[in-house]
Parts: sequence; structure tokens; C-alpha cells
Amino acid sequence: MLATFMYGAGDVRVETVSDPTIKNPTDAIVRTVRSCICGSDLHPYHSMDASSEGSPMGHELIAVVEEVGADVTTVRAGDFVIAPFAFQDNTCVFCREGFQTSCIHGGWYGSAETGGLQADLARIPLADGSLVKVPDLNPATADDGMLASLLTLSDVYLTGYHAAHMGQVQPGKTVTVIGDGAVGLSAVLAANQLGAERIILMGRHTARTDLGVEFGATDVVAERGNDGIAKVMDLTGGEGSHIVLEAVGHMPAYEQAYGIVRPGGIISRVGVPQYEDAPVGFGSLFGKNARLAGGPAPVRAYIEAAIPQVLSGQINPGRVFDRTISLAEVPAGYQAMDDRTALKVMVTP
Amino acid sequence: MLATFMYGAGDVRVETVSDPTIKNPTDAIVRTVRSCICGSDLHPYHSMDASSEGSPMGHELIAVVEEVGADVTTVRAGDFVIAPFAFQDNTCVFCREGFQTSCIHGGWYGSAETGGLQADLARIPLADGSLVKVPDLNPATADDGMLASLLTLSDVYLTGYHAAHMGQVQPGKTVTVIGDGAVGLSAVLAANQLGAERIILMGRHTARTDLGVEFGATDVVAERGNDGIAKVMDLTGGEGSHIVLEAVGHMPAYEQAYGIVRPGGIISRVGVPQYEDAPVGFGSLFGKNARLAGGPAPVRAYIEAAIPQVLSGQINPGRVFDRTISLAEVPAGYQAMDDRTALKVMVTP
Repeated sequence: MLATFMYGAGDVRVETVSDPTIKNPTDAIVRTVRSCICGSDLHPYHSMDASSEGSPMGHELIAVVEEVGADVTTVRAGDFVIAPFAFQDNTCVFCREGFQTSCIHGGWYGSAETGGLQADLARIPLADGSLVKVPDLNPATADDGMLASLLTLSDVYLTGYHAAHMGQVQPGKTVTVIGDGAVGLSAVLAANQLGAERIILMGRHTARTDLGVEFGATDVVAERGNDGIAKVMDLTGGEGSHIVLEAVGHMPAYEQAYGIVRPGGIISRVGVPQYEDAPVGFGSLFGKNARLAGGPAPVRAYIEAAIPQVLSGQINPGRVFDRTISLAEVPAGYQAMDDRTALKVMVTP
Repeated sequence: MLATFMYGAGDVRVETVSDPTIKNPTDAIVRTVRSCICGSDLHPYHSMDASSEGSPMGHELIAVVEEVGADVTTVRAGDFVIAPFAFQDNTCVFCREGFQTSCIHGGWYGSAETGGLQADLARIPLADGSLVKVPDLNPATADDGMLASLLTLSDVYLTGYHAAHMGQVQPGKTVTVIGDGAVGLSAVLAANQLGAERIILMGRHTARTDLGVEFGATDVVAERGNDGIAKVMDLTGGEGSHIVLEAVGHMPAYEQAYGIVRPGGIISRVGVPQYEDAPVGFGSLFGKNARLAGGPAPVRAYIEAAIPQVLSGQINPGRVFDRTISLAEVPAGYQAMDDRTALKVMVTP
């Protein structure tokens, strides 16, 4: 089969490797219907040290089950499934508390052991917890837009949803979303679904912020840094935003976040932080009782509620995909996302 | 009258100054019944640069109203009142949202303009928002324990309560309190009031942790640093604490907090941070979806519910006071708290 590997910054290759096989009785083997490239894949694309051993890439997938291990009971060959971007048993204490990305027995795709999901086939560990069946839909006849939206439930839309959920978005609240990438736009859509009264989108790529407006943004702020902070404070009558959804992960976005969050407000981060230390003392968070939330989205906690929303057409989060390529073209897909000529790239087998 | 001033680290003086007078029609002048020394007063006691101009000290007070300005309507001369440690109008948008320490028109005691509350008399700005009447109690005949407990509603108990409230303490949760000072012990009592199933108190001063056990702590951990983290992880079956109430303010306490908080858990800080930057990235908070909350307690939001709890004897938070001195003896009171020979010092006029 074909699978994607990164050998260093800017060096992505699609290679022929042997097909995955069942290793543990809780595994499943699935055949890809659609996968995609994530904004977080661009972090190693910028910074990974060159290596003679490639890192398997990809963690977003919709697929058809080929084969299951002896202990798998919830899916079987032929089922059309969504794979959340992390695997989990969905039964441990942290899974039961709704934080499946901290599953005691779970983990991340893209290791030498587990492999990546930008591939023709994949081995899914803990399949009962890590695959969710899409009922009553044949992927061979479903339209592309529906497949695209279902694919976003593997990561990007539900990562935006996690930001909004942890930010406690509810009717009457002013929400500011920092970042007009696919996660930021997903956060706009999720905040709208949760009833936010006002959604300010901070971003300066018009094609993207236009989609943000269609997703529910009521204001767009193109300015950054102190100018961006001043603009949001002005838009909120000097009060600041009840909730800030930070979908970038770089320090300037964090600085904007605590600059615009209102006293008692919540900053919810889903952009993977490219820093470890950050201001949290009296002058940033503490003095105004601002709260900090967020982390890797426990997609598994939200996916069952989201599937019918997609199937019914209530939400159409797949609109974040603006390019579709074949698996062999994946290196060009990374380049296009890095160049910002594509917002998010979907991959067909 | 006598009032307390700090002239530099370790240099506290009680001086005779002129009595305060009404400056604005929203002011009240009050005569102290009890004031006290706060753990946060020890920060400048350690670090303040020597100055020829003294900083007025003190922000905790129960008092009798002497005189009110023309616009004051909710209290009048003779009323027995509690002064929350910050002043506020209690009507602005942030006050209405329950974050009175961010009141648009409010502020802190201890400035040259407002003065401090370790004094015989004080001017209280925005008296309608900044004084809360204690009904049906004559301070001249009330017993000392009752006065002590009412005094804690000015700051220390309700600061502990704020920690527990922002940490979302509720039945079934495991709570760890870091710090056995008066705020930490108050946080134990508040967590117990809110129904925490288990309360682990991290502290190593036996006289203090013994009071913590009386306040509801189920476990005491004397170890610090990595040993303390290991002990709490062990006590929680390797899972960590749902909620961590950080009542110290120094970096090692913050490091313990993120070391023991469980995935999806909440760290709620009320120790004033003596740092600005701290770890919040993948390796500390983000990776496990740990949340950070807390700040200066909006005591005003909680005080009306707490007064009847004190008057009925349901809670007795005044037990954190273990020494009572006169106003003239305040410098020795600072020294005793700094030496840890006193937990918290109450001051009589």
C-alpha cells in the first residue's frame, strides 16, 4: 500500500510499504475512504530534524472496515467508520470523564508502532473505542460534501467544538476566535451552534474569513497584536470578550487572547502550543480572574452527537476543505497548506 | 487616630495621623471593630524597597459606621458592617457578572488616596457597594469567636471559598489544597462545605494541618516537590486530583499543582502569584486538558450567603486566628506571621 512519511522539515514522501495486519485482538484494519492534512502536521514540516527514518504521518480518517480482531465487538468488516484522531479504549476512568485524549491505554497515530492515517490502509488499535460507525450511509455513493463533513468529525470540526465547549460558550456570550485556519473556522461554526450572541473572528485572509462569516462570525478583525486587541476592545465597548477561542498555538495569539479576554472570562486553546512558558500572573490572567482551558480535543466524546447533525445537513463543516488530491500528491498538499494556497487539503485513496 | 504604614521590607510602623473624612458623597467613615494581617501583606514585608513615604497597610475589616456621605443609602451611622478587601460599586457590568474585584469604578485599599484598614478609622469609597451590614448583632456584646469569623468574610475565608468555587468543587470530587496558611485552611473548609468527597491538604506545620483536619481534610501530605507529587498520585490511585486549590503563590506550589492535577482537572489559584510566566504548554496543562482558574476573590459576590452561615454557627472560619494584638502592636504581628509563630493575627483597636 501507499503511506506518507516525513523525513525532515519540508521533506514528505509517499512510499510503498507492506499492508498493516492485526497485531492485537482489539485491532481493526480499515481501508481509507478519505484522509486529510492537519494544520498540526505543518509544525514538524517546519521544524523536524532530518532523519533517515521517516515518521508516519496523518491522523484523520474515514474508512471502511476490512477486518477486525477476535475481541472487537462494535464494528465489523464492511462498516463505514470515522476514526477520532487519537485512539482510546473509551472505557477507562478518564474516557468516562470525557477526556479520551488522556485514555490510560490510548495514544497517538504516527508512531513507528501504530503508523499514520495518510495511507491506503491503517491498523486501528482498540477498535471498539477508536472507530465510530456511521449508520445508513454507503461511502461509495455518498456525495463528496457529505464525506468531507464526516471527515471533519475525525478532528478539525470537533477540535473547534472542543474549544467552544471548554470555553463554556452559551447564548448571550461574546466569543472571539483567534485564527482563520480550518480549526478557527470550525470554532466559529461550533460557537454558533452553541448559541453565541456575537462571534468576532480575528484573521486576515479574506477567502477564509468570508467562510467564517457564513459559519456565523458577526465581526471580522484583520488587525493583529496591539492593534487587534484595541479593535476587539473597541467592538466590545471596552469590556472584552467573555470567551476567546485560540486556534493558532503561537505566543502572539496567546498574548492577543489574554489582552482581549474580559474579567472572569475564559481563554480556550486548541492550537497546539508552540511554547511551554507563558504569562499567567497578575498582569495577564490572575489579576482579572481570567481562566485558561483547552487541550487535545477528546473527539470521541462529541462524535456521536455530531454525526446526525452532519447527516441531516444541519452543519456542513466539510466546507473547510478547498482542495482534494490523491494520496500520491500528498507532498504537494503539504506545500499548498504551508503556502496558504489551500486552507485544508482532503486526500482520496 | 492610629494607622499602620510600611516603609520598606521589615519596616512596619504605627503612626498617629489625622482622622479620615468624607471626600465623596458615596463615602462612609467607619470605626474599626477588628482588622487583621494578611498573608499577602508579607510579600512587601519581604521585598519592599525602603521609602521615605510609608504605604498605608491593611485591607480586612469589620467596623461600625460613623458617618455616611449624602449619596449612601444602604448603610447608616451605627450599622455593624463587613468591608470586603476591595471596594466596588457592585453595580457595574463586571460586578453583575460576579467579578467585583474587576469593578470598573473600584480599587484596592492601601493607596495614598484610599488609605489602609489596619487603623482606628477608615474612609470606605463607594460605601453602598463596599460595606455589607451584619444584621441583628451588637459587636460590643458579640463574643470574640463570632467577631473573628465575621472578620474572615472580609477576605481570608471567602478567598478560600473563591478558590473552591472557581475550581468547581462538588460532591464526588477529590480536592487537593496546596498550602497550610490561613487561606489554604479556609479553602479546605470551603471545599468541605461544597461537598468534596476527599480533601488532601499539602502542608507540614502540624498545628495548622491539625486545624485543616478539623475543617474537613481527609488526608495530609507533608512532603513537597516531586515527593509531594508522588504522594498525592499514590493517594489517588495514580489518577491525580480533580481539583487543586493553590493557596501559596510561589512557583514550586504551581509546579506541584500541575503535577498532581488529573486530566481535565482544574487548578484554582488564590495565592497571589509571585511570578508572571509559568508552564502552560503541552507538558504541563495543555496535554492533559488541565484548566487554570482563580484570581483576587470577589468577596462581595459570596458574602451575603456566608453571613448567616457564620451567625448560625454552621461554619467557624475565625479559628484561623491564633493571636490577637492591639493596633500599637501590629509591627510585632507582622513579625510573628513572618516567623510562622502565628498563623493569622487579629487586631483590636
